[in-house]
Amino acid sequence: MMNYRKVVGALGIMLMLIGGAMFLPLIWSLYYGDADWSAFLITGMLTVMVGAVMYRLNDMKGSIRYKEAYAIVTVSWLLASAFGAVPFLLAGTFTSFADAFFETMSGFTTTGASVLTDIEALPHGILFWRSLTHWLGGMGIIVMFVAVLSSLGVGGLQMFKAESPGPVAEKIKPRISESAKTLWLTYLSFTVAETLLLCLFGMSLFDALCHTFGTLATGGCSTKNASIGYYDSPAIQWVIVLFMVLAGVNFALHYQAFNSRSLKSFWRNSEFRLYVVILVAAIFLAFLGISTATEQSFAETLRQASFQVTSIMTTTGYATADFNSWAPFVKVLLVALMFVGGCAGSTGGGIKVGRILILLKQSKLEIIRATHPRAVLNLTIDGKPVGNNIVVNVLSFFSIYVVITCISTVIMTLAGLDIVSAFTSVAANLCNIGPGLELVGPTQNYGFLPMWSKFYLSFLMLLGRLELLTVMVLLVPSTWRK
Amino acid sequence: MMNYRKVVGALGIMLMLIGGAMFLPLIWSLYYGDADWSAFLITGMLTVMVGAVMYRLNDMKGSIRYKEAYAIVTVSWLLASAFGAVPFLLAGTFTSFADAFFETMSGFTTTGASVLTDIEALPHGILFWRSLTHWLGGMGIIVMFVAVLSSLGVGGLQMFKAESPGPVAEKIKPRISESAKTLWLTYLSFTVAETLLLCLFGMSLFDALCHTFGTLATGGCSTKNASIGYYDSPAIQWVIVLFMVLAGVNFALHYQAFNSRSLKSFWRNSEFRLYVVILVAAIFLAFLGISTATEQSFAETLRQASFQVTSIMTTTGYATADFNSWAPFVKVLLVALMFVGGCAGSTGGGIKVGRILILLKQSKLEIIRATHPRAVLNLTIDGKPVGNNIVVNVLSFFSIYVVITCISTVIMTLAGLDIVSAFTSVAANLCNIGPGLELVGPTQNYGFLPMWSKFYLSFLMLLGRLELLTVMVLLVPSTWRK
Repeated sequence: MMNYRKVVGALGIMLMLIGGAMFLPLIWSLYYGDADWSAFLITGMLTVMVGAVMYRLNDMKGSIRYKEAYAIVTVSWLLASAFGAVPFLLAGTFTSFADAFFETMSGFTTTGASVLTDIEALPHGILFWRSLTHWLGGMGIIVMFVAVLSSLGVGGLQMFKAESPGPVAEKIKPRISESAKTLWLTYLSFTVAETLLLCLFGMSLFDALCHTFGTLATGGCSTKNASIGYYDSPAIQWVIVLFMVLAGVNFALHYQAFNSRSLKSFWRNSEFRLYVVILVAAIFLAFLGISTATEQSFAETLRQASFQVTSIMTTTGYATADFNSWAPFVKVLLVALMFVGGCAGSTGGGIKVGRILILLKQSKLEIIRATHPRAVLNLTIDGKPVGNNIVVNVLSFFSIYVVITCISTVIMTLAGLDIVSAFTSVAANLCNIGPGLELVGPTQNYGFLPMWSKFYLSFLMLLGRLELLTVMVLLVPSTWRK
Repeated sequence: MMNYRKVVGALGIMLMLIGGAMFLPLIWSLYYGDADWSAFLITGMLTVMVGAVMYRLNDMKGSIRYKEAYAIVTVSWLLASAFGAVPFLLAGTFTSFADAFFETMSGFTTTGASVLTDIEALPHGILFWRSLTHWLGGMGIIVMFVAVLSSLGVGGLQMFKAESPGPVAEKIKPRISESAKTLWLTYLSFTVAETLLLCLFGMSLFDALCHTFGTLATGGCSTKNASIGYYDSPAIQWVIVLFMVLAGVNFALHYQAFNSRSLKSFWRNSEFRLYVVILVAAIFLAFLGISTATEQSFAETLRQASFQVTSIMTTTGYATADFNSWAPFVKVLLVALMFVGGCAGSTGGGIKVGRILILLKQSKLEIIRATHPRAVLNLTIDGKPVGNNIVVNVLSFFSIYVVITCISTVIMTLAGLDIVSAFTSVAANLCNIGPGLELVGPTQNYGFLPMWSKFYLSFLMLLGRLELLTVMVLLVPSTWRK
């Protein structure tokens, strides 16, 4: 039986955090004198109050089980998106709840898919809230939430596993709340660094903060209609490339490097090496693919290739060019990269490089096993053996991911999409990227879709962000049986 | 070290069989008084002679190892396609070897993809040879070959595993050559039955034989430009649907049913049940999808839906309608079915229903394991436990299949194809179906593609037909090391 009191209590804490966060866009709104300040004041107070009541009425003592952790995490994201959607409605950005919910879920899951047509017409509070949901969803909320819960004595490990499952858990510190704090510090330092650099190269503080949030969370919401393409400055584009690359790396590695004052820990990590190899190879191929069809300068083509490959593979979704108009070769390459995603323990989505690594190593073992049927072969990563259970788990994850993609593509054709639009709308949302191709390409948006499909894509975002199982566990009857 | 003498000797036997088979189209050619008889006489004699020399010069005694079995099987298909391509060149059907090789590999691998524009203009010998390659590739050659080799004392089990790996090996008889003989008998009985039925409903004996070969091998080559759409008779179309369904079933089940004079063995087999469930569900969905956009009668729509779903899922590739003009919903559904394929031990290609079954069961276990981390859960099929090794093997197979599809789609865009054409050209050839969508749709052909891509697609056909590993084993250095 599910212990509902604990679930509701934990959800109360999360709502208080989300409600508190709404006071930040309020400040920007007041600073710029926009009319949307009341939307944040009202929703912020309401959310904190609801959260406080939920927390107060429940007893949080004692440990929780896995099924409760899964329920807390999944419902957290649903509730956060439901409450987070209210400012959009009160400020008049959207008139339909489906649109507001889609936009907020897209924010928290760091997808960056939008139903908006004119972003630049929005008030500052709303713009900031869109970007802040990225930042909170990327690492902030997970880490804060886990830290708060485990300091209350509630099973932090279960929560941590449910929020960021990943194939290989790199333990940084023995205590989970300590881990959470160090991740939080790393995230915060990167935020400060990128904001400063973007300001240095000419962005306003407001835009710099918003784009930093979008970068480090691998989200992709921009304050400009043309996304990063709005900024002509190569320096700004390269800074964002750099931080997208960093955001796609396991944050535990950043912390280790920072702590040991050495970059060796990166190269000792085979997931990181594969991540870099894929990035570099894909940039090279994309560069060739773009340069055969353009008369741009070498530097500009290289920058476009680097930006778009990094943006897609880290599942950020920023754009400096309309990649939907590129050659089919580059487009298929980008779609394949959507599924690769970032490293485990990063803010990126997708299948994750660590899983691809295990998949490749396992494939090699299977080929060897075909000619040596009796050989005992074990998969190792960084010299450590990887248990059979983890291999099966990773391969199952991959298979379920593919099956969900297939079925969802069939479903999305019912929304009137052609095959490529349907497939890439699924890929772009399940892998938490944002823009796809054709009708959902980088110069388009998801606004024209029928209402049911917006909820379906929101569901895919959540499924992808919580890496399938956390959500799927709640959909099977056995979880709810005594 | 590879024992090359044994490999060459075995290849000699195979060439003698292929060469002997070339005398069958010779008979049809002489009967109809066509000019292509000399092509078959010359190539047939040449092939038998080359085979005889290769066999004579080598000592075949003693058992073979897995790596030799893999080499024999893979090179067999390559050699068979190379020699089988010669009649096309001598008869003047093709002027390029790439085209002739593609067409023959497409025949032997039971793919049914064609580079021909006007099939009905071809002489009878060539038409018969195209269909005969299907029949030989579907079950005949495998079974004959294994039977001959194992009667010579050469490791039949290794050969059998290399030719038809399949996830779960249903052993029919203790001795592998006995199994081969019973499969051969089943195949032959179906051939006689379908040919008689097609003749009964008005097909000429020649066309009936050719279409029977295409059906039972799940090949898809027709003697008509409009494929089965040429025949208005609903009876003919339904007969072909029936035998396509039968060809997609594990032939061991047919044999058991025949032997026990009872159909119970079918329903006791969970792969068969899933096969039927997927078929029926897909026909239902396709029926709905087609009927919303057409004013055809109920019977005609049902027939079209049944025919096309069965043809695609069993990886046959016959067409009664231009499904490329259907709604995106039905098209995506058909593409998804391409990957499902037939049952293990059938003549169908694709991933196979048995693997999908293991994948689904494993996914369910993973979800249960998420909430019960310490539970010991074992996968069972038909009440028998499925070992961890098999589960890992199946999941690896699925993952490699998907990765090959992705990479190959990128490669096929270099042939100037759009995304959907590139993706479905890969799916249709890797899964051994034949027609894809758009530029490679059912009313189109593969003739316009650049030469290198015809060889690449031929490679994919072989990879799919031999279920990846048999071919891949030969591509890694460790197989060739001492």
